[in-house]
Amino acid sequence: MNSVDMQNVPHLTTALRGPLHQLEAHLLAHQAEIENWFRNQWLATPPPFYASVDVRNAGFKLAPVDTNLFPAGFNNLNPAFEPLCVQAVHAAIERWLPTAVRVLLVPERHTRNINYLESVAALRDILAKAGLEVRIGSLIEDMRNPQKIPLPSGRTLRLEPVARVANRVAVGDFSPCFVLLNNDLSGGAPILDDLEQMVIPHPSLGWSERLKSVHFSHYRDVARELATRVDIDAWLIDPLFRNCGEINFMKREGEECLADNVEALLAQIRRKYREFQVDKPPFVMVKADAGTYGMAVMTVHDSDELRELNRKQRTRMSSTKGGQTVTKVIMQEGVYSFETWGARQAVAEPVVYLIDRHVVGGFYRVHTDRGENENLNAPGARFEPLAFAGSCITPDRDREPDAQPNRFYAYGVLGRLATLAAARETAHSQTLPPECDDEPNAVAAG
Amino acid sequence: MNSVDMQNVPHLTTALRGPLHQLEAHLLAHQAEIENWFRNQWLATPPPFYASVDVRNAGFKLAPVDTNLFPAGFNNLNPAFEPLCVQAVHAAIERWLPTAVRVLLVPERHTRNINYLESVAALRDILAKAGLEVRIGSLIEDMRNPQKIPLPSGRTLRLEPVARVANRVAVGDFSPCFVLLNNDLSGGAPILDDLEQMVIPHPSLGWSERLKSVHFSHYRDVARELATRVDIDAWLIDPLFRNCGEINFMKREGEECLADNVEALLAQIRRKYREFQVDKPPFVMVKADAGTYGMAVMTVHDSDELRELNRKQRTRMSSTKGGQTVTKVIMQEGVYSFETWGARQAVAEPVVYLIDRHVVGGFYRVHTDRGENENLNAPGARFEPLAFAGSCITPDRDREPDAQPNRFYAYGVLGRLATLAAARETAHSQTLPPECDDEPNAVAAG
Repeated sequence: MNSVDMQNVPHLTTALRGPLHQLEAHLLAHQAEIENWFRNQWLATPPPFYASVDVRNAGFKLAPVDTNLFPAGFNNLNPAFEPLCVQAVHAAIERWLPTAVRVLLVPERHTRNINYLESVAALRDILAKAGLEVRIGSLIEDMRNPQKIPLPSGRTLRLEPVARVANRVAVGDFSPCFVLLNNDLSGGAPILDDLEQMVIPHPSLGWSERLKSVHFSHYRDVARELATRVDIDAWLIDPLFRNCGEINFMKREGEECLADNVEALLAQIRRKYREFQVDKPPFVMVKADAGTYGMAVMTVHDSDELRELNRKQRTRMSSTKGGQTVTKVIMQEGVYSFETWGARQAVAEPVVYLIDRHVVGGFYRVHTDRGENENLNAPGARFEPLAFAGSCITPDRDREPDAQPNRFYAYGVLGRLATLAAARETAHSQTLPPECDDEPNAVAAG
Repeated sequence: MNSVDMQNVPHLTTALRGPLHQLEAHLLAHQAEIENWFRNQWLATPPPFYASVDVRNAGFKLAPVDTNLFPAGFNNLNPAFEPLCVQAVHAAIERWLPTAVRVLLVPERHTRNINYLESVAALRDILAKAGLEVRIGSLIEDMRNPQKIPLPSGRTLRLEPVARVANRVAVGDFSPCFVLLNNDLSGGAPILDDLEQMVIPHPSLGWSERLKSVHFSHYRDVARELATRVDIDAWLIDPLFRNCGEINFMKREGEECLADNVEALLAQIRRKYREFQVDKPPFVMVKADAGTYGMAVMTVHDSDELRELNRKQRTRMSSTKGGQTVTKVIMQEGVYSFETWGARQAVAEPVVYLIDRHVVGGFYRVHTDRGENENLNAPGARFEPLAFAGSCITPDRDREPDAQPNRFYAYGVLGRLATLAAARETAHSQTLPPECDDEPNAVAAG
């Protein structure tokens, strides 16, 4: 890591640092307990293959706001930590399919998003360096022949149409041991239904089937368990939330429930802000409970805003990725982003990556056009990635709690907490797969 | 990694590169098979907690010459890869003692070797960053009070006398969950006998109890298994060896057996050199079968040399570390070191480090005073450490087989092979320990 990297760390608004400094100090002082706790948690509930967690750092509070089990953005990680990713993939393969040799990586369909394709290429390279034979299977429906896509990084991506024969998928003559999904299948993919091959992560783990309210109620549990251990108020790491039953934005059904709950939530946050002497207006994020891609999300400072939605706002809240209708929402405490980057004070949101149980790095979404209380992962939102300069697993107790390695460590703890919540949420789907027949003689006489 | 690091790679004498280039190309082409094979090997035979492997690169051949299960030299690894070590320690703890919080690190007794103390400090930091509470227990007999040793790196080492109460050891009021040995106990340590606490690695794994001939016969097995898989001559990765029964250098007993076997070994090597067109004189290393610290080792080019040993040479071959008498020797094919470093063409010998099953880095012993066919790890031997510039786990199939990441990958394969041999050799001692009672409530309701 060179000296330039060392400086690439966003600035945290100092006026609000006090309590976070305390939080980071607590996490650091209880590191041995935290690591012990995580070790035992992973033994009880195995981690997903991979995950990325959006974290927001409000200075007084650190909280995850989204946990993605089909992460993109591998191209935004610090190349210096690629070996960490490779080592973690060894662990993931050992856990899921120690006999595996051949893997079919199935990415999202959108081939025009160069950044996403760079992520797929970066992920492919990590898998290959861990010793897997990787091919990329495209679900694009009209694809007939392999397609080579040269990328700005110099990498080339080779997409091949996925073919199904009986209960197996293949590309060309390459019959994989397992399918690694980097696609949440919110558009559906019957070609992958009921395969003889293992599909990891399980297709039911996309945000189109998961409910944020279920995820965050598991998160609330794990946050409380950890908070008890390290003796902090769980609120410092846990965003409050509420939800209603069925709603229909177009028909204005459920509007009262929404407004009432937002009001109650704002009051709850206000009390916490008073308790922790936070002098900022509270706000709430209203999101589709089964949503992704930052669609159907709005920021609310006052419950009246929900009673005064215009047609355009209603329409925007009514459907999410792939045109799915929003029938449930989650109202979640808004968490300020008080990390800024550069002279223009661009808001910076950390994203933490895990492979298996290991935090392998992260990056900041640096957003020059948005405010500190807005959703940074909105459609069309442009951000500059800023790779984490340090790893998230090398805290240094000889330095200040908010020194760079320790702030990254805190992000890693939050990332793992959210991933553990996802692991509990999805435990039902994590059946162990059969062995692969790729390598019938894989185990030599020992 | 900066550009200076990128250049810190020893030069390999080019005239002899041909066959190694082939070997590296083979390993690279068969990477998926190799990784799959290792994965399954580790499932069958768990790896030791940690290991370091001395490798020699003869250009035409790549072979391990020593496998240490109580490795020093952690201070010589590239700091950029500390996260890899930390991640691997998480894996090791999960394998051995997932409930562990407190560990007592027991180093060698020699407190005057600053380099060794720096290694202990580096190891302590790695363990602490993985979330263990680490204290350092000294076996120095006259130590009564804790001793603080400031080190040139700026680190401070705190040694504490180990106290035994009934079947447990402690330092002060710190009662560890387990003892991590970084001391092969060749001097004996009754204070650690029959403890209730787990001692890792098992004290029987020091070179004073292990026999090199046993290790290398396991190594021969694993090398052959791998060689068959990747379709190379096993000799390219395996040093030939032979041994005799009891010998006594002082009484000149067993001399004929030694000389005969060295002659046979030299003839064997000569045949292989002819087959692979190696135009160098073969040589043999005669080593104490149960030896360490580079003591009782000699280089032999002709069996007659063994019949003409003078008194000084006999004495030197008669005893090893701690004054133990040599009664068995191993005669091993000498492997040239054809990597050189710097304008002075200093011989460079790679040392590969593993924690659990993971290759976490390595360094070169760069030796300015010795020849290409001598033992580089001799008593009083001075070397300059040169950290590996890249990781050993990120091979790059888009580059030449002997490009830096691929040469390091080959070293990692050899390091793992030797460690796997050690794992088989020591499998009997690897009983799983009981849980620790450090943390009775370690697993929260999940």
